[in-house]
Amino acid sequence: MASIANEHVGDPEIAGSAARLRHQIRHHGWCAQTSSQAGGYVQANVVILPADIAGDFMRFCQRNPKPCPLLAVSEPGDPRLPALGADLDIRTDVPRYRIWRDGQLAGEPTDIRDVWRDDLVSFALGCSFSFEQALVDAGLELRHWTQGCNVPMYITDRPTVSAGVFGGPLVVSMRPFRAADAIKAIQVTSRYAAVHGAPVHLGDPRQIGIRDLGRPDFGDPVEVRADELPVFWACGVTPQAVVMTAKPPFCVTHAPGCMLVTDLRNAALPLG
Amino acid sequence: MASIANEHVGDPEIAGSAARLRHQIRHHGWCAQTSSQAGGYVQANVVILPADIAGDFMRFCQRNPKPCPLLAVSEPGDPRLPALGADLDIRTDVPRYRIWRDGQLAGEPTDIRDVWRDDLVSFALGCSFSFEQALVDAGLELRHWTQGCNVPMYITDRPTVSAGVFGGPLVVSMRPFRAADAIKAIQVTSRYAAVHGAPVHLGDPRQIGIRDLGRPDFGDPVEVRADELPVFWACGVTPQAVVMTAKPPFCVTHAPGCMLVTDLRNAALPLG
Repeated sequence: MASIANEHVGDPEIAGSAARLRHQIRHHGWCAQTSSQAGGYVQANVVILPADIAGDFMRFCQRNPKPCPLLAVSEPGDPRLPALGADLDIRTDVPRYRIWRDGQLAGEPTDIRDVWRDDLVSFALGCSFSFEQALVDAGLELRHWTQGCNVPMYITDRPTVSAGVFGGPLVVSMRPFRAADAIKAIQVTSRYAAVHGAPVHLGDPRQIGIRDLGRPDFGDPVEVRADELPVFWACGVTPQAVVMTAKPPFCVTHAPGCMLVTDLRNAALPLG
Repeated sequence: MASIANEHVGDPEIAGSAARLRHQIRHHGWCAQTSSQAGGYVQANVVILPADIAGDFMRFCQRNPKPCPLLAVSEPGDPRLPALGADLDIRTDVPRYRIWRDGQLAGEPTDIRDVWRDDLVSFALGCSFSFEQALVDAGLELRHWTQGCNVPMYITDRPTVSAGVFGGPLVVSMRPFRAADAIKAIQVTSRYAAVHGAPVHLGDPRQIGIRDLGRPDFGDPVEVRADELPVFWACGVTPQAVVMTAKPPFCVTHAPGCMLVTDLRNAALPLG
């Protein structure tokens, strides 16, 4: 396990807003949500698991790339994720963590150095912030942005492909569009396989087991106008729900909205 | 470990040429190369490793998706890969295997049921047959097809990103094109991330440590005309070389050219 404590702090070569925000987070100068911060940079969902079940979770992600797009996986016990930032330390660089023991919430610290173990494997998964920015840049309206609320999310009747102890239903997020914009949204998000990719469904919600769009399982309801189609994307809540259902003896995740800020640029994601 | 011996043989619903060829292979009616067989269907490189180092290899693939595009990974001890074929049995469905012990070739059987173990994990990786067909369908000439030889492959000075015991140089394949066709080739293969994706280099071979295009490390040399650029793609020989260098106590791969024939369609690969 490498020691990489803060070696880049004050380094004048680190000029990017992502690295600056990450350093602020590391020194507890930021422990809030990261939405709309460090614009243009990829933010990630975080799941940290003991090595003995990390292989199961990695196979789960490989089999379910739309809800679980893997951006990076650490070596066991190594807190670095160099693919996402040369100086990144997963023990200090998330604004707020959630610690889970046997599926029960056991704390929400801003630093996990005291519970770090030599068998922990860190997973960083893509999140929808990246493709939402791309949709807005393409001139589309995001209704939950307009309404100033969270995106509505629904548990579907579509199963994920299980792996070892991990399995369960697919969770989707929904954004309404008129037909022409729905087509554009499919075109744009198809280019972002690393952050959920193309939608999984559009139109009749009942076809994927959603009874009432007005009552999402997570997030807030948004208006769907008569001339609009609801468009559904695989959602990063899926792996969180799957891990909680499996109740591993020990697990760490990011707290909702408090994402890992990486040095990857959203605009570079389609380049593979 | 499930028993799935030949339950679909003679099933009239299995009409695809891929499933038919796979059944022929299973019953030892085919133990030769699979190139140009079962046209339109995805063929895969195969690596089978004990569970205790399979996690390292899976992280290696995640970090090096261009040379190691993962199509499917089995549960430990389970010979099935249902994502690639409902009836697929990795112990019988490759035309010819290579068994490796401590990095030494220890046999080339047509069936591995007698050496199967409950801790083996099977990896299927995309191969360039799929994108080569897409290039030809787009009207491009593949020089090694024209010349009736193997594609030339070169060991570069570019390192892969290592994981656990696995690491080493990137191996590339080369196809020459005039500039306009090189651009088309980049467009076409960008859509095939599951089978090596966009090229990693084009033009001056020395920039990636290749001294003499006329002397490939694997395969055969092909003509590069004065008005053509050599275009280089990450190659599936990379993971094979990496595994051989790591010298695992036990490993099984496909024999060269004797690929796993899957039920996936090449044309569906860009859809994710």
